Amino acid sequence: MNGVGQPLARYAACKRAGDYLFLSGIIAVDPARGRVVAGFADLPEAVRADLGETGEFSIDVRTGPVLAQSWFVLERIRSILAEQAGTMEDVCRLVQYFRDLRDYPLYARVRRGFFPNTPPVSTVVEVSAMLPSAEVLLEVEATAYLPRTTQARS
Amino acid sequence: MNGVGQPLARYAACKRAGDYLFLSGIIAVDPARGRVVAGFADLPEAVRADLGETGEFSIDVRTGPVLAQSWFVLERIRSILAEQAGTMEDVCRLVQYFRDLRDYPLYARVRRGFFPNTPPVSTVVEVSAMLPSAEVLLEVEATAYLPRTTQARS
Amino acid sequence: MNGVGQPLARYAACKRAGDYLFLSGIIAVDPARGRVVAGFADLPEAVRADLGETGEFSIDVRTGPVLAQSWFVLERIRSILAEQAGTMEDVCRLVQYFRDLRDYPLYARVRRGFFPNTPPVSTVVEVSAMLPSAEVLLEVEATAYLPRTTQARS
Amino acid sequence: MNGVGQPLARYAACKRAGDYLFLSGIIAVDPARGRVVAGFADLPEAVRADLGETGEFSIDVRTGPVLAQSWFVLERIRSILAEQAGTMEDVCRLVQYFRDLRDYPLYARVRRGFFPNTPPVSTVVEVSAMLPSAEVLLEVEATAYLPRTTQARS
Amino acid sequence: MNGVGQPLARYAACKRAGDYLFLSGIIAVDPARGRVVAGFADLPEAVRADLGETGEFSIDVRTGPVLAQSWFVLERIRSILAEQAGTMEDVCRLVQYFRDLRDYPLYARVRRGFFPNTPPVSTVVEVSAMLPSAEVLLEVEATAYLPRTTQARS
Amino acid sequence: MNGVGQPLARYAACKRAGDYLFLSGIIAVDPARGRVVAGFADLPEAVRADLGETGEFSIDVRTGPVLAQSWFVLERIRSILAEQAGTMEDVCRLVQYFRDLRDYPLYARVRRGFFPNTPPVSTVVEVSAMLPSAEVLLEVEATAYLPRTTQARS
Amino acid sequence: MNGVGQPLARYAACKRAGDYLFLSGIIAVDPARGRVVAGFADLPEAVRADLGETGEFSIDVRTGPVLAQSWFVLERIRSILAEQAGTMEDVCRLVQYFRDLRDYPLYARVRRGFFPNTPPVSTVVEVSAMLPSAEVLLEVEATAYLPRTTQARS
Amino acid sequence: MNGVGQPLARYAACKRAGDYLFLSGIIAVDPARGRVVAGFADLPEAVRADLGETGEFSIDVRTGPVLAQSWFVLERIRSILAEQAGTMEDVCRLVQYFRDLRDYPLYARVRRGFFPNTPPVSTVVEVSAMLPSAEVLLEVEATAYLPRTTQARS
Amino acid sequence: MNGVGQPLARYAACKRAGDYLFLSGIIAVDPARGRVVAGFADLPEAVRADLGETGEFSIDVRTGPVLAQSWFVLERIRSILAEQAGTMEDVCRLVQYFRDLRDYPLYARVRRGFFPNTPPVSTVVEVSAMLPSAEVLLEVEATAYLPRTTQARS
Amino acid sequence: MNGVGQPLARYAACKRAGDYLFLSGIIAVDPARGRVVAGFADLPEAVRADLGETGEFSIDVRTGPVLAQSWFVLERIRSILAEQAGTMEDVCRLVQYFRDLRDYPLYARVRRGFFPNTPPVSTVVEVSAMLPSAEVLLEVEATAYLPRTTQARS
Amino acid sequence: MNGVGQPLARYAACKRAGDYLFLSGIIAVDPARGRVVAGFADLPEAVRADLGETGEFSIDVRTGPVLAQSWFVLERIRSILAEQAGTMEDVCRLVQYFRDLRDYPLYARVRRGFFPNTPPVSTVVEVSAMLPSAEVLLEVEATAYLPRTTQARS
Amino acid sequence: MNGVGQPLARYAACKRAGDYLFLSGIIAVDPARGRVVAGFADLPEAVRADLGETGEFSIDVRTGPVLAQSWFVLERIRSILAEQAGTMEDVCRLVQYFRDLRDYPLYARVRRGFFPNTPPVSTVVEVSAMLPSAEVLLEVEATAYLPRTTQARS
Repeated sequence: MNGVGQPLARYAACKRAGDYLFLSGIIAVDPARGRVVAGFADLPEAVRADLGETGEFSIDVRTGPVLAQSWFVLERIRSILAEQAGTMEDVCRLVQYFRDLRDYPLYARVRRGFFPNTPPVSTVVEVSAMLPSAEVLLEVEATAYLPRTTQARS
Repeated sequence: MNGVGQPLARYAACKRAGDYLFLSGIIAVDPARGRVVAGFADLPEAVRADLGETGEFSIDVRTGPVLAQSWFVLERIRSILAEQAGTMEDVCRLVQYFRDLRDYPLYARVRRGFFPNTPPVSTVVEVSAMLPSAEVLLEVEATAYLPRTTQARS
Repeated sequence: MNGVGQPLARYAACKRAGDYLFLSGIIAVDPARGRVVAGFADLPEAVRADLGETGEFSIDVRTGPVLAQSWFVLERIRSILAEQAGTMEDVCRLVQYFRDLRDYPLYARVRRGFFPNTPPVSTVVEVSAMLPSAEVLLEVEATAYLPRTTQARS
Repeated sequence: MNGVGQPLARYAACKRAGDYLFLSGIIAVDPARGRVVAGFADLPEAVRADLGETGEFSIDVRTGPVLAQSWFVLERIRSILAEQAGTMEDVCRLVQYFRDLRDYPLYARVRRGFFPNTPPVSTVVEVSAMLPSAEVLLEVEATAYLPRTTQARS
Repeated sequence: MNGVGQPLARYAACKRAGDYLFLSGIIAVDPARGRVVAGFADLPEAVRADLGETGEFSIDVRTGPVLAQSWFVLERIRSILAEQAGTMEDVCRLVQYFRDLRDYPLYARVRRGFFPNTPPVSTVVEVSAMLPSAEVLLEVEATAYLPRTTQARS
Repeated sequence: MNGVGQPLARYAACKRAGDYLFLSGIIAVDPARGRVVAGFADLPEAVRADLGETGEFSIDVRTGPVLAQSWFVLERIRSILAEQAGTMEDVCRLVQYFRDLRDYPLYARVRRGFFPNTPPVSTVVEVSAMLPSAEVLLEVEATAYLPRTTQARS
Repeated sequence: MNGVGQPLARYAACKRAGDYLFLSGIIAVDPARGRVVAGFADLPEAVRADLGETGEFSIDVRTGPVLAQSWFVLERIRSILAEQAGTMEDVCRLVQYFRDLRDYPLYARVRRGFFPNTPPVSTVVEVSAMLPSAEVLLEVEATAYLPRTTQARS
Repeated sequence: MNGVGQPLARYAACKRAGDYLFLSGIIAVDPARGRVVAGFADLPEAVRADLGETGEFSIDVRTGPVLAQSWFVLERIRSILAEQAGTMEDVCRLVQYFRDLRDYPLYARVRRGFFPNTPPVSTVVEVSAMLPSAEVLLEVEATAYLPRTTQARS
Repeated sequence: MNGVGQPLARYAACKRAGDYLFLSGIIAVDPARGRVVAGFADLPEAVRADLGETGEFSIDVRTGPVLAQSWFVLERIRSILAEQAGTMEDVCRLVQYFRDLRDYPLYARVRRGFFPNTPPVSTVVEVSAMLPSAEVLLEVEATAYLPRTTQARS
Repeated sequence: MNGVGQPLARYAACKRAGDYLFLSGIIAVDPARGRVVAGFADLPEAVRADLGETGEFSIDVRTGPVLAQSWFVLERIRSILAEQAGTMEDVCRLVQYFRDLRDYPLYARVRRGFFPNTPPVSTVVEVSAMLPSAEVLLEVEATAYLPRTTQARS
Repeated sequence: MNGVGQPLARYAACKRAGDYLFLSGIIAVDPARGRVVAGFADLPEAVRADLGETGEFSIDVRTGPVLAQSWFVLERIRSILAEQAGTMEDVCRLVQYFRDLRDYPLYARVRRGFFPNTPPVSTVVEVSAMLPSAEVLLEVEATAYLPRTTQARS
Repeated sequence: MNGVGQPLARYAACKRAGDYLFLSGIIAVDPARGRVVAGFADLPEAVRADLGETGEFSIDVRTGPVLAQSWFVLERIRSILAEQAGTMEDVCRLVQYFRDLRDYPLYARVRRGFFPNTPPVSTVVEVSAMLPSAEVLLEVEATAYLPRTTQARS
């Protein structure tokens, strides 16, 4: 699962400006293979059962895409923050775009694992499409508050 | 109209980070009754005439939903800010999502009542859907600037 | 090309709050003439060839609208920042709404001219519609980091 | 605003038969320029503010067409009646066709100005289209009672 | 079933002009409760079986709305005429608007009960929508001939 | 072409009320054969060439249905009036419903033959459907002024 | 009405297996003429009035197809059973497929005539299409319990 | 939760024929109240948490309808069998109709609770609609093997 | 072609109950590879030419999916029956679901190879979708009569 | 099958220009009867079985139209060429328009009978519609090389 | 009407190859103004009445676009041929693309004026779109036979 | 890139007739692998950058398919001509079919590389579909003039 935190292309994955860290909208594209996460098979073995893989083909083929993309996107946000010495606790705002809001309950279940305590401020809307293609089911834009440790705020 | 400022569920209604107060996307769901605001009948009597209720059934049934949701959402933002010792004047940025932009002129009329002076920065787009259901006509995400040092405003 | 930086109506084109400058979502509406930018003919002569005008009618009529709107919107952001003594380098976050994501490659080509070095953090989604009308192909919301103490930049 | 009362073409704008005056279905086509009324700009300056022009582009571009067509159509009916020595008080029956009934509340606001007292009998339906083109938003067929013996009304 | 003959709002339910009585387009809105007639449950007990209520849920839920609205609308026309000392026999012209002409056979069955002898002149079309909302399945505009000299009918 | 003036079923083809003759909405159903007029082949030989039959299959198959229905409907109105000792000159009002307004120019050409002098008052709208089936392309409701005192016209 | 009980082609109309008689899904195709039953005209004269033929063209053209197909299908099931020395009383299970469930109330009325006493177990769904063509409005699969009378089961 | 096992109307909820028990297609209509099960609120308190109610409005409003209908339908099958001295173990065949197969994973989770051991033979298809209305999300037709000789099971 | 007769998951591929063998609805999913049969390439070499593979890309890409799925499904039914000591002759009832009935003629050609003599009772409908995904073109539910006493067939 | 080679109307069926013979786009309209070929019944008895008529209604009703039109169109091209002393071998170019490319495999099977040796150059596209009506499934434009010097072929 | 024969851009308007003159597909774009011909107003005054301009707004606005484009396209073909010393008589083949074949009868009327004698070989299809934009209603590709040796025609 | 010039199947890739070489409509199907060209990855490394590959995933995934197919198709035409001792200069006529004309500007850029001097005559239309499947974005039919006497070109 290397490369989860790498920027995709031609824009910054994150940018510090003052005490805030802004992240680009994250989608579930595996930069190592250059294609959209399609299901449980694209995830590390260790997390698949936790996410709800049942082994029943007719079910996994339907819930797999959104569960896998949800985990991938949030894991990537976690990874970007870690590179900046931050954690998910530092996220102060999330905007979440879905292609079909019927996927929201599954996403919400995954998100609960990443934000067990105080969840961030959240906006959720359904849009017509996202980059790069119709296989992308959700995109998450996060903003984190990471004050410079030397800023000696009063 | 109690409960207007309460968070709906499982995410923060607002979160302070540094000098800014971030608010979740607000929709017109009455938490007391757990259902979407549907028209003038869901508003306090005092504001209904001001919002444009005509008493003519064929008209109110059409303009009611968006006028009522507009008022409810902006009133809820006002209420959340008030709990943080802020006012609508402190809002520095609004993102407004509509399910049908034909509703914008009615929303704009209501918003003018909440921002009589300098209006905040504004973005308006039409999206396919919002949580929790198709009855939601608009969602507003607000960001406010509430510097700590000036919190002792009279 | 006067008036590019003027607010359209009833909301602030930009608003400073702390060290940040928030901009409203910018669309390609020419305030001087009160109508949406429709193609190369609405741009200054000097930039049209650079943007990719070919002189072949069947091509320009298709690529013109999005190329012209892309330039207009980014130029307007540049102009608003300049009035605040900032540059495109100061933009720390972009949210870009498209009516049809097939227009993205053309927009990306134009954006590269405005952000030759470190591009800002970026989110891109396709929405159903934008204000004021169906001719609007894209809207860009920008946030810039312009700390007060460094405003005396040369 | 000359020519408001002129027939468009090839059929009578009105026809007296016994004590009744029948009017053709009236649409908002300006016979002087041979094109459909498109917004506030096609109305006399004096009535635009009264009809609800706000000067905000995003709003006027949406409410303008139906408000302007509503005024134009009812003013034309008033003008035809005046040529027959009648007034809006003499209208006994209205059939109103809309292309989109969401326009009805705006039309109803305009109509109230033309019928301040006893409104006529009214039928309202939404149809698929009207002549001459898709820009026509509403058509009104009026019938008036103008008995010959009382035409010497003071 | 009081109030069947009352006007809904802001326009006349009927208007006499010369020897004719013009009625507004009538829809099945119960003015007492301000909502559209939805099925057998909104009718007086006495007429439900006659109209074809079967007690079988899957059937009544489908035939109920149009049967109930048909009865309500024609009963309201009868009631308005009665207030003017007229009867259904005096109706000389009907224009009937449907949202779905597949409802016509059920309506026709109800109408036969109101016009057992010489039926009036009739026009039937399917339109896209009617006021106030999509629940309205039909609208009937009636014209009656009620000469003044014969109003002292026994 | 017998039977053109006969009522179809269960409602009056026309009804005199005072000085007016009201006609039901007329559609092009041949009562003798109980089916909708489908093209030139359903018309008397004598009128086909005048109506614009070209003998070219690809053209007649497209223009035939509306031209034939237009002639049939107007001829039937003429025939009903003749039975009441009236002529097309006595028609004071027409409401014309189309399933597709692109058929209007062809209808208008046919109508010109029936109303060579002063055309009656006219309303034209496009509706979703008409009785009895989707093959019906137009319906015309006519009202005529036939004062009793002048019925002894030569 | 000969031939009602004949198999259409290439599969068994019914097949006994143990104590049960399985029937193929029955549709209203007249094997004598090789085309789908289209209306009352395809039924024996004797049953048409009972089924609800009104003689009014606009009504019969709408209710005719489903009423005629309902009768034809159930009559064919009755006939197949009769050939196997069974009656409708022996049917223990029905699966009924409709192309449009709005046809169900009319079908239910016909079915009541075939099952006046204890109705069989019933499943009803709406499917996208049936063989052989879009004119088929319903298909009924029946299963009957016809124990071999001499089978002397223990 | 009384009445779960009662037939809805006009057809048998189940019918024994030989050694088999046939059940009608079961939908989630509460016969006591005559309306379709709409969500968790229509279930007994005791089962709601087990079925996956989260208390978060945006989630429960989406997963509630299908989870509640799944439980209701399977519980009703269990109840009908119990009245015939059978259990879910005796079900030998299930045909399951869905209006949207995206609901299948949630249904499968519920079904697993009713068939913990050997699951019956299963067919699953998505159909366009079911009786009585569009709120019905699934229908289950079950067949059970209940040989007479073993009915004295303890 | 091993594994053709294995159950996919979480429900029985077949279940004996009394003298009957019920089979689950069979779809063309290759359990060895866990994906839907897509064309000739997924079949054993030996059967491809017989099924109608032409070697012409534009043809095989269109007829391949349904021909291959038809063979796979019927072969799997044959295989399940063989494991129960039965043959295709024992099938007494088939319900066949298609996503597009235009595929039926190709399926029928394949089925003829599996049932050369007396074909079973047959029902064919088109449904909106089947599990697990839109690539599934058909599903077949079979019932066989395999009385215990005759299981020692040679 | 006389008349197959006759032009339909108002344009040349073929035209020699230099060494080439250009043919109009040929569709399957029987000029003798002036209507589109609809199925096997419109073909000579002798060719029907060869084309694939099965006698099974549900199949022939689906494959018949395109098989019959394919044969008719290619036979007509052959006939036109024969009148010009040419054969199918002389065809050097075909452009084939389909209304639905799913019909291509059936057409290709028929074409193979007309071009057993070296097939001509071929272009195949699906278009929205063809003259004269929606029943036309394909149109073929052929060009032949018939040099004058070789016209005295035996 | 200068410029009718000029190529639009980046491809040859015509090209001689051997004895044939090939023309590009011609659309009704006025190269002088660089926009699509929209109606009668874009034609020379002299031809408008001949083409069928009626002066009635509702009619001309519908028939004008296709009549004007038809004339423009055929006139341009005539003009290109004239520059090559050819006439319409030399055209040996036409392929005509329409966006809506309902426009064909009007086009055919115009074409008859350009080809009064022997019409060329003709193919007509409806396509989804043409360059440069949706306003283009038809495109005509012509091929002419202009042998070199006969170019000195009088 | 071997095999680019090979015919796909069952029809000639090109055919000489007199002085002309006719080519079949060419699509971007790689005969070596029997599947449609899907993007840059299917092209030789050397041409990818020239065609406009950016390395940015979101862009290349959108422009790649049409750019790659455009190059493949034109390269194949060049290759077929080369086998006949011709060059792109000899092409006298092109008909270009697109599935979506928004792809035209990208195609036009590629074509410019193949026809740097005098471009051939050109027709461009958008069709509904092409063989073999929906992944095909364009098809090009070319005609070349290759007189025999000049075939000994150096």
